[in-house]
Amino acid sequence: MNPIWLADVVRRALNEDIGYGDLTTEAIVSANSQASGTIIAKEAGRIAGSEVAALAFHLLDPSVNFTIIAADGTDVQAGQQVAQVNGSAGPVLMGERVALNFMQNMSGIATITAQAVREAAPYKARIVDTRKTTPTLRPLEKYAVRMGGALNHRYGLDDAVLIKENHLAVAGGITQAVSLVRRRVGHMVKVEVEVEHLEQIPEALAAGVDAILLDNMDIPTMRQAVAKIAGRIIVEASGNITVDRVAEVAATGVDIISMGQLTRSAPALDLSLRLCLQ
Amino acid sequence: MNPIWLADVVRRALNEDIGYGDLTTEAIVSANSQASGTIIAKEAGRIAGSEVAALAFHLLDPSVNFTIIAADGTDVQAGQQVAQVNGSAGPVLMGERVALNFMQNMSGIATITAQAVREAAPYKARIVDTRKTTPTLRPLEKYAVRMGGALNHRYGLDDAVLIKENHLAVAGGITQAVSLVRRRVGHMVKVEVEVEHLEQIPEALAAGVDAILLDNMDIPTMRQAVAKIAGRIIVEASGNITVDRVAEVAATGVDIISMGQLTRSAPALDLSLRLCLQ
Amino acid sequence: MNPIWLADVVRRALNEDIGYGDLTTEAIVSANSQASGTIIAKEAGRIAGSEVAALAFHLLDPSVNFTIIAADGTDVQAGQQVAQVNGSAGPVLMGERVALNFMQNMSGIATITAQAVREAAPYKARIVDTRKTTPTLRPLEKYAVRMGGALNHRYGLDDAVLIKENHLAVAGGITQAVSLVRRRVGHMVKVEVEVEHLEQIPEALAAGVDAILLDNMDIPTMRQAVAKIAGRIIVEASGNITVDRVAEVAATGVDIISMGQLTRSAPALDLSLRLCLQ
Amino acid sequence: MNPIWLADVVRRALNEDIGYGDLTTEAIVSANSQASGTIIAKEAGRIAGSEVAALAFHLLDPSVNFTIIAADGTDVQAGQQVAQVNGSAGPVLMGERVALNFMQNMSGIATITAQAVREAAPYKARIVDTRKTTPTLRPLEKYAVRMGGALNHRYGLDDAVLIKENHLAVAGGITQAVSLVRRRVGHMVKVEVEVEHLEQIPEALAAGVDAILLDNMDIPTMRQAVAKIAGRIIVEASGNITVDRVAEVAATGVDIISMGQLTRSAPALDLSLRLCLQ
Amino acid sequence: MNPIWLADVVRRALNEDIGYGDLTTEAIVSANSQASGTIIAKEAGRIAGSEVAALAFHLLDPSVNFTIIAADGTDVQAGQQVAQVNGSAGPVLMGERVALNFMQNMSGIATITAQAVREAAPYKARIVDTRKTTPTLRPLEKYAVRMGGALNHRYGLDDAVLIKENHLAVAGGITQAVSLVRRRVGHMVKVEVEVEHLEQIPEALAAGVDAILLDNMDIPTMRQAVAKIAGRIIVEASGNITVDRVAEVAATGVDIISMGQLTRSAPALDLSLRLCLQ
Amino acid sequence: MNPIWLADVVRRALNEDIGYGDLTTEAIVSANSQASGTIIAKEAGRIAGSEVAALAFHLLDPSVNFTIIAADGTDVQAGQQVAQVNGSAGPVLMGERVALNFMQNMSGIATITAQAVREAAPYKARIVDTRKTTPTLRPLEKYAVRMGGALNHRYGLDDAVLIKENHLAVAGGITQAVSLVRRRVGHMVKVEVEVEHLEQIPEALAAGVDAILLDNMDIPTMRQAVAKIAGRIIVEASGNITVDRVAEVAATGVDIISMGQLTRSAPALDLSLRLCLQ
Repeated sequence: MNPIWLADVVRRALNEDIGYGDLTTEAIVSANSQASGTIIAKEAGRIAGSEVAALAFHLLDPSVNFTIIAADGTDVQAGQQVAQVNGSAGPVLMGERVALNFMQNMSGIATITAQAVREAAPYKARIVDTRKTTPTLRPLEKYAVRMGGALNHRYGLDDAVLIKENHLAVAGGITQAVSLVRRRVGHMVKVEVEVEHLEQIPEALAAGVDAILLDNMDIPTMRQAVAKIAGRIIVEASGNITVDRVAEVAATGVDIISMGQLTRSAPALDLSLRLCLQ
Repeated sequence: MNPIWLADVVRRALNEDIGYGDLTTEAIVSANSQASGTIIAKEAGRIAGSEVAALAFHLLDPSVNFTIIAADGTDVQAGQQVAQVNGSAGPVLMGERVALNFMQNMSGIATITAQAVREAAPYKARIVDTRKTTPTLRPLEKYAVRMGGALNHRYGLDDAVLIKENHLAVAGGITQAVSLVRRRVGHMVKVEVEVEHLEQIPEALAAGVDAILLDNMDIPTMRQAVAKIAGRIIVEASGNITVDRVAEVAATGVDIISMGQLTRSAPALDLSLRLCLQ
Repeated sequence: MNPIWLADVVRRALNEDIGYGDLTTEAIVSANSQASGTIIAKEAGRIAGSEVAALAFHLLDPSVNFTIIAADGTDVQAGQQVAQVNGSAGPVLMGERVALNFMQNMSGIATITAQAVREAAPYKARIVDTRKTTPTLRPLEKYAVRMGGALNHRYGLDDAVLIKENHLAVAGGITQAVSLVRRRVGHMVKVEVEVEHLEQIPEALAAGVDAILLDNMDIPTMRQAVAKIAGRIIVEASGNITVDRVAEVAATGVDIISMGQLTRSAPALDLSLRLCLQ
Repeated sequence: MNPIWLADVVRRALNEDIGYGDLTTEAIVSANSQASGTIIAKEAGRIAGSEVAALAFHLLDPSVNFTIIAADGTDVQAGQQVAQVNGSAGPVLMGERVALNFMQNMSGIATITAQAVREAAPYKARIVDTRKTTPTLRPLEKYAVRMGGALNHRYGLDDAVLIKENHLAVAGGITQAVSLVRRRVGHMVKVEVEVEHLEQIPEALAAGVDAILLDNMDIPTMRQAVAKIAGRIIVEASGNITVDRVAEVAATGVDIISMGQLTRSAPALDLSLRLCLQ
Repeated sequence: MNPIWLADVVRRALNEDIGYGDLTTEAIVSANSQASGTIIAKEAGRIAGSEVAALAFHLLDPSVNFTIIAADGTDVQAGQQVAQVNGSAGPVLMGERVALNFMQNMSGIATITAQAVREAAPYKARIVDTRKTTPTLRPLEKYAVRMGGALNHRYGLDDAVLIKENHLAVAGGITQAVSLVRRRVGHMVKVEVEVEHLEQIPEALAAGVDAILLDNMDIPTMRQAVAKIAGRIIVEASGNITVDRVAEVAATGVDIISMGQLTRSAPALDLSLRLCLQ
Repeated sequence: MNPIWLADVVRRALNEDIGYGDLTTEAIVSANSQASGTIIAKEAGRIAGSEVAALAFHLLDPSVNFTIIAADGTDVQAGQQVAQVNGSAGPVLMGERVALNFMQNMSGIATITAQAVREAAPYKARIVDTRKTTPTLRPLEKYAVRMGGALNHRYGLDDAVLIKENHLAVAGGITQAVSLVRRRVGHMVKVEVEVEHLEQIPEALAAGVDAILLDNMDIPTMRQAVAKIAGRIIVEASGNITVDRVAEVAATGVDIISMGQLTRSAPALDLSLRLCLQ
């Protein structure tokens, strides 16, 4: 991840929670109180976000010590230690909620992603995410998806081309759309087109796209599409594919399964910070 | 909501998604193409975030028209229209994903909140949220909670005092902690103390707190706590209370039920924007 | 105070003063010149802002040493040393004005506040500030008020409710206004209502507000109001109360005296930095 | 003033006051309530900041109408109307405090400046401000000084050279300091040197500075300095010159009198906004 | 281009030039003076940046009229009109330099790019830019390159993979490097590898990269490389290729020619704004 | 330079280039790889920007070592070492392009400036820059000009007055324009007026300006202007003066030669970073 961007977003999060100051901690905790604590997983899952949690404390006080026990991408069981924090009690208490909020959300995404990846493991299909992410936190969520063992679809509207139904309507067809796009983008940009019907596939192949997205097709249709495309370009299955449907979709032979669920509906992983203050 | 803050966050979200530019739309859509479309609920739920979605389009192009059909706080059925958007096709396509991402997340929170509120309806207990929110987006999530019919707990560390177990450990007890806090905060700040055992309640009452938080107590203990407190101060139940447990917790007679689940694990509400381009 | 916010505001202040660069210092002072100096109080007062002054130097050069002699909240006499600064001469000279500007303004507020607090000392009344603060610097000014020994009224429009005359006009009365507010805010928010006539007090008491603000009442009327309220809720006196009027207002028996003067019209405390360069 | 900078600072001020939202106004005031009101001077003074106040409302709602009655730079009497505001009641109530805080502080500065200017009127001396301004708000305060009829000293460390005692100590004398500076700065930068003793004046004149600052000299010494300099370069008097001392300082024949008091210790001008809501 | 980003950068540019205010214009130009003027090309070239210039005026005053005569991507002759501006004289004068600075730099890039494109026209090779751009202004410069008729190489380190010599050194070879990269990036990311010797080409082909960059090869070696690759993947020539060398490089049969010169060393196109004030 | 501003601009540049992360480096380079390298001048020139390059690495990783060999303002030959960098390979690779882009552009400006300064050396004329700089990077470019041995003209519209033809048109003449300006600006602001004809000089001298700008005059006219002004005020020659014309312009006896070319059309100096990775 980009450390400059990351520091900015964690600073914004700390500002949001602390506001004018932590009324409770400022009143009660003296400057020389020390705290040491352990982040514990209260349920099983895949960890992501330790570096972000560490930064939440370090931006408040660079002398706080944050030791990672279960690194990002590791699976933990309920009750297992994830990280330890030691330092001045004030910044530890002020940073706690922000550190946990980031880490719980990111670990929740990594956990559900790891489940999807396990479902797809027997097949060649790779799991990827979508742009259905929490606004302004996409880099963290796409990182969590990677920690879950999946890969990232495009990051935004600027790093790859995905020609959707609406674009086709304006352009007047796949051939025209791809031709317009090729005039605009350089040789390092991949072009994917979204199709809803098998009939569109020959035109897509002829137009020379790099990948084809099968939008909301049922399993038999997907299988036919895979057969038609016959390995010439990358085939992506998309549209409300949840973890429990991954295996059957993967079995159709698609190369890529994209899942909005990974970043839209992942429950947070339950982590808690048990502190001991001196 | 604060319009100045809101415009900033939506601008950040648009920047995140658009980056250097929308490669696909810039290549395909001409400046005079028009688009009109409808946001449809693909499942039943409670709407929140229409104003945010509208802003996503308006910040790209003030002339885009966004008409709200189902206002924030309204329940919709699957298939129902939520809003309409009309305008220049470029900005409509560029703003679509950001608008939906905000609205789906916020409606997801409003929907689960509305369920919790319904569970508590026969009792006097009010549902509130927590600080377990998505970092940097708390105002949106707390707003969505209100659209779900619940109320907000404190916004951050600076607008109310919540003395937790860790603070008690440092201060040496409830009496000392409350006394330190009262010296620091003005007459408009409420003070709540978190207790884990019934034995702490008399000290809390004597210390003169405004509210008491029963942390992770079982139902019979909560009932005893409510009896002990006997209406003298506000009683809040907290700790992993999910929608299916709301009714039994509310039945203990507590005044407030705070639920991290509302903002941590609410699945996004499925909304889609069907466009028609000219 | 929130260290993230504080660093931002001090950075903005340094940018404002330094702009493209310090023409004089860059031309004259070589990179290895050292400076040591002492901040002296040129008049008696209460100190506030040492931490802010220290930060002004540290943000320019982390190796500058800033030693606090008279901590925030301490009273100093004319001629007394307040702090010492040692380090590279360039950053010391470039940060001097910004450090002093913050510290003089904050100490000015602390000084006048301490005077008000002394006036109120024989009575139970506590002194608090208002929202009449310098735009964008409120957290510093509210901190200075606390260093003067007073407490803070609400920080902004979002952390407590104050129903003013204008709100009453729209709502149609205290009862209706309080009822509307209670539906909107959670259990951690206090509600205060502003009254201008004794006749409004019974309705305010009946509506169940947490505090009542007596707006611009004369002393006998305040005394009657205090009698009517009889300790049931907090009573605040407000409206052009200057230091010389504090004692007579406090003598009426009010609980809280809010003073715009503390942050609007406090003359800066005269501090100077005497440097010795090598 | 720079409109881009101004909008930024007013936005920051609104964010500070509104935070997550105006709890009171959001609860009580409906979207179609209208408000109209008048800003009244509650004491006599010189107005500055109307444009800033207008912006506070316009940034919340561009449709609010703000009509200036007493323009910046105008003198008003107690009770006189300064401006009128009409529009949607929500934004009017939410922007009121920020608008007034800016305008009261700026008008306070303009008022005391106008007094100083009146004192100097019989003499050739011009009043100027200093860098002893409120951090991050200098452009507003320097503008207010101009509305008071005075001129601005340099804006910051980057637009003119002022060689102070400390710089002289490092450089080893006026001649050396001026020579170092002339090598660094272009032909559009003026150079002023601060002197504490009459003996320094010949060296300053010989070094070819554009102006000489007489630092904390008594009246007879100033008079001697003016005689020595004999109109060859600009003479500035500085150092704790308050309004009541302006006339005697001006009578010494100096060209410029700089006064920290204008921006450090000006009491806010009392303005109030009386609203009428429908 | 992304309108949100663009407004931010133009605002920053205006702030840089205007600072505290335009001393000259504020002193001389009254609020009701009007100005109308024409931007003229003082030498022949390709125009880019009209939209940016327009924004410079609109951000200062939305009522200023900016009419584009020679649209971006158009070639103009010396003396030809490029755009017209009409409006309040103050903002027109304050925005002039910023508008011209953007437009001259961007048109300079478009102009040299158009020359390179013309050189390559008889061949299949496409001209692309590099990451050797002016820091923080890359989107403007890449846009100008497109207006010159060329395409963009990757935007940054995050939208495509370019394995350079240094990466190969760390990875231990092309095969290992490509394998590591494929595990990290999704199906929409292209992978290019930089080679310095013909001997590296078979390994690159075998590793399955999407493109190969011939780094600083001489013409005969390039020709051999093209022959070896034989159209299987995209071939890019890179390394100090200036406009006068484009044709000979293109003649080798490469697909892509990347040129740092386009954005690093393009002289600004001379444009002037002739105003007429009333 | 202002270190606060500088850190901001380098952070923005790093964000621009790194975006969501460096796909290549993150995939290939492990956390404990080390890199050491040398920045080499590939052509002769004057160095500027080492401090900026150092910061690019330090902001990514404070432990990276950056040793300056050829300090800013030094002339280097092709092949000469300029600086060395050692540290963790990840940040070294991620910061390389940004560091070089800044340093190449700044050294390009210093190099052409040094040429101009050499041309003017036999004469009294000093070379200065203009406001024709790259938007948002002016302080870097003006610094580079100084490293080239020249001086800076005004930084922006706020630090000095330059009355141009358009201002004269509005004011109705030099006398009126200067009089309006003198009422607005303090004693530390210099006033220059632009003249196009010899006839305007007497009025300019009478109006008491500090400097006169001869706009686009031919050599004989400049010589006449210099004679007319006769040393009473500073004379600046301006208007498309390129390095090859400096000597003949300087020979006319002007005091100042301002050159837009220095910052508008300086080709970047070719620098490369040769890395060695372990």
